[in-house]
Amino acid sequence: MEHFSADSLSDFSTAIFKKIGCSTEQAELAARVLASADLRGIDSHGIARLIGYVRLWEKGRINARPNITTVHQTPSTAVVDGDQGLGLVVAPEAMKIAMEKAAKVGTGWVAIRNSNHFGIAGYHAMLPLQQDMIGVAMTNASPLVAPTFSKDRLLGTNPIAVAIPAGTEPPFVADFATTTVANGKLEILQRKSQSAPLGWIQTSDGAPSQNPKEVANGGALLPLGGDKEHGSHKGYCLGAWVDIFSAVLSGANYGPWVPPFVAFLEPSANPVGKGMGHFVGAMRTDAFRPVEEFKQHMDQWIGAFRSAQPADGQEKVLIPGDPEREQEVLRKKQGIPLLPPVSDSLRQLSEKFGIAFPAKV
Amino acid sequence: MEHFSADSLSDFSTAIFKKIGCSTEQAELAARVLASADLRGIDSHGIARLIGYVRLWEKGRINARPNITTVHQTPSTAVVDGDQGLGLVVAPEAMKIAMEKAAKVGTGWVAIRNSNHFGIAGYHAMLPLQQDMIGVAMTNASPLVAPTFSKDRLLGTNPIAVAIPAGTEPPFVADFATTTVANGKLEILQRKSQSAPLGWIQTSDGAPSQNPKEVANGGALLPLGGDKEHGSHKGYCLGAWVDIFSAVLSGANYGPWVPPFVAFLEPSANPVGKGMGHFVGAMRTDAFRPVEEFKQHMDQWIGAFRSAQPADGQEKVLIPGDPEREQEVLRKKQGIPLLPPVSDSLRQLSEKFGIAFPAKV
Repeated sequence: MEHFSADSLSDFSTAIFKKIGCSTEQAELAARVLASADLRGIDSHGIARLIGYVRLWEKGRINARPNITTVHQTPSTAVVDGDQGLGLVVAPEAMKIAMEKAAKVGTGWVAIRNSNHFGIAGYHAMLPLQQDMIGVAMTNASPLVAPTFSKDRLLGTNPIAVAIPAGTEPPFVADFATTTVANGKLEILQRKSQSAPLGWIQTSDGAPSQNPKEVANGGALLPLGGDKEHGSHKGYCLGAWVDIFSAVLSGANYGPWVPPFVAFLEPSANPVGKGMGHFVGAMRTDAFRPVEEFKQHMDQWIGAFRSAQPADGQEKVLIPGDPEREQEVLRKKQGIPLLPPVSDSLRQLSEKFGIAFPAKV
Repeated sequence: MEHFSADSLSDFSTAIFKKIGCSTEQAELAARVLASADLRGIDSHGIARLIGYVRLWEKGRINARPNITTVHQTPSTAVVDGDQGLGLVVAPEAMKIAMEKAAKVGTGWVAIRNSNHFGIAGYHAMLPLQQDMIGVAMTNASPLVAPTFSKDRLLGTNPIAVAIPAGTEPPFVADFATTTVANGKLEILQRKSQSAPLGWIQTSDGAPSQNPKEVANGGALLPLGGDKEHGSHKGYCLGAWVDIFSAVLSGANYGPWVPPFVAFLEPSANPVGKGMGHFVGAMRTDAFRPVEEFKQHMDQWIGAFRSAQPADGQEKVLIPGDPEREQEVLRKKQGIPLLPPVSDSLRQLSEKFGIAFPAKV
């Protein structure tokens, strides 16, 4: 695998986003969101997706110069219309509004419609940390997930992220798909020609499957829990919650109507809303108790969990956010490893737009 | 099994709560919360727990005449001190405050300290439905759950409930523990002398176990997902999120310090906060879009999921809240079935307090 510096990848993405018409500011922001995924080790949501955004733009499904507007609001809520802009820039804009509301009335909650893929949820949830606020971000996604007992695919991997500031400890950052696994894990198995554990996927008839190509064959990803006996109805509840907050509150498309990320699949001819939906929130910690007191207790919480006795055969107990932080340290030093299909996609973009191929490390 | 009418059980609980010193109003409210669990089929959280509350009161760990106060607030948030009152009455009081705040500024979020077991989360989350609001309720609980990779028990079953109003359809009501299963399922297996599926529990060394008595032997319940390969780190994130919102925001005890529900186990001698913690919220739907528009789309959302094709061998796809509604219809007709140990506990209370044993149906 070739390794690239995060900066060179970020410069490359910025240049491409500018080529499709984004303002410098929005291009830099969008590139930063992708780079944060690559640094944190969430390869499926980083620069690997750049060509996907370009293809959607070519199809006229992304507006590079969006007029992002607030269409409704109260002191603690807003609905934002992303005007088909990149989710990568619409979501941070919406979070800014949530944080402004939180600064005034304690919390701010923004539902977003008419957007598209917003990258990693964790990036957006972490924005409020700078102001000693808790951040929440969720989004719906293309329908690839079958609810418990269903053979139809009605939900996306619908991730939830929650970021909570601490004092001397690093922040608590949970960021996870509400399925047993996201699609990226299946792609890894396909490349290695390995089978998937039971509980990840089902066939198009709704039968358990271990074939990592099953989703491409019309099968489905399964909600967190995998099957009813292991609580998949809870994962279904979580994914449904994310879908409703992201889209029914905002006026975006939900369930089977969510537009696909891939440009070769057309969005529904009978949409029930506008584009994809997200939901973000910010809560001032001092809307509940003094910041220093809150942080001291978060440090104590983290300390208690970090010092838990590992199960036999395990090295240590992790705090949500630890694995991504470890990746970030490593990748800042060693560069971002890109698989051949990903670096090939960058070569294609480099030639098409006349932008220098990013520097390897 | 003996069957009792919900009303007779509710009258019995009310009488007992009054005997321990609760006001009529609070006794009736507490009884109503327990009865709603029994009606909805969540037997572990209904009248089966009545004797547990009485025992805690006998130990001086429940205050029957609490002075429930708001200790801090902003326009959209509050921290409530439950003064060691029954969680069954403290949580509805806190939700009332959340709803008042939502009426004014769009949303209201209340963190609660110095409380104890609040019954089913769903009861509290459903309160805002009457005012076309979305309700959220969560609580921490006695540490019986091991985080991923841990042999120590640091979290409770920490449930989350979300209730969302619809139009002609019944509301969406998700209410679930953030573990693969809650303790009640293990008790059922113990009575039947059956073994548990893998992914529910582990031994005190952190090894997989199928022995339903394992938790009593120092083992642990597992976060939703069961093991890392099936996403237990996501269930751990969820349980941790609930713990932090319920207790670090409010100033209650968190993690291993959460006081046990059972009276024979003493609370920590070095508490990090006051009592147990909850977190509740209310969001006006019209803080996002007109109520009728929201409800019409919720109906369409529910319709799409309800009409999904069932997987081979399954009857139908359910909407969160359906199983509990079906139980409620059935139990209103046939009465509440109580297992012999539960009816025995009521006989004990009946004799001890001189209250007539509830009428069977």
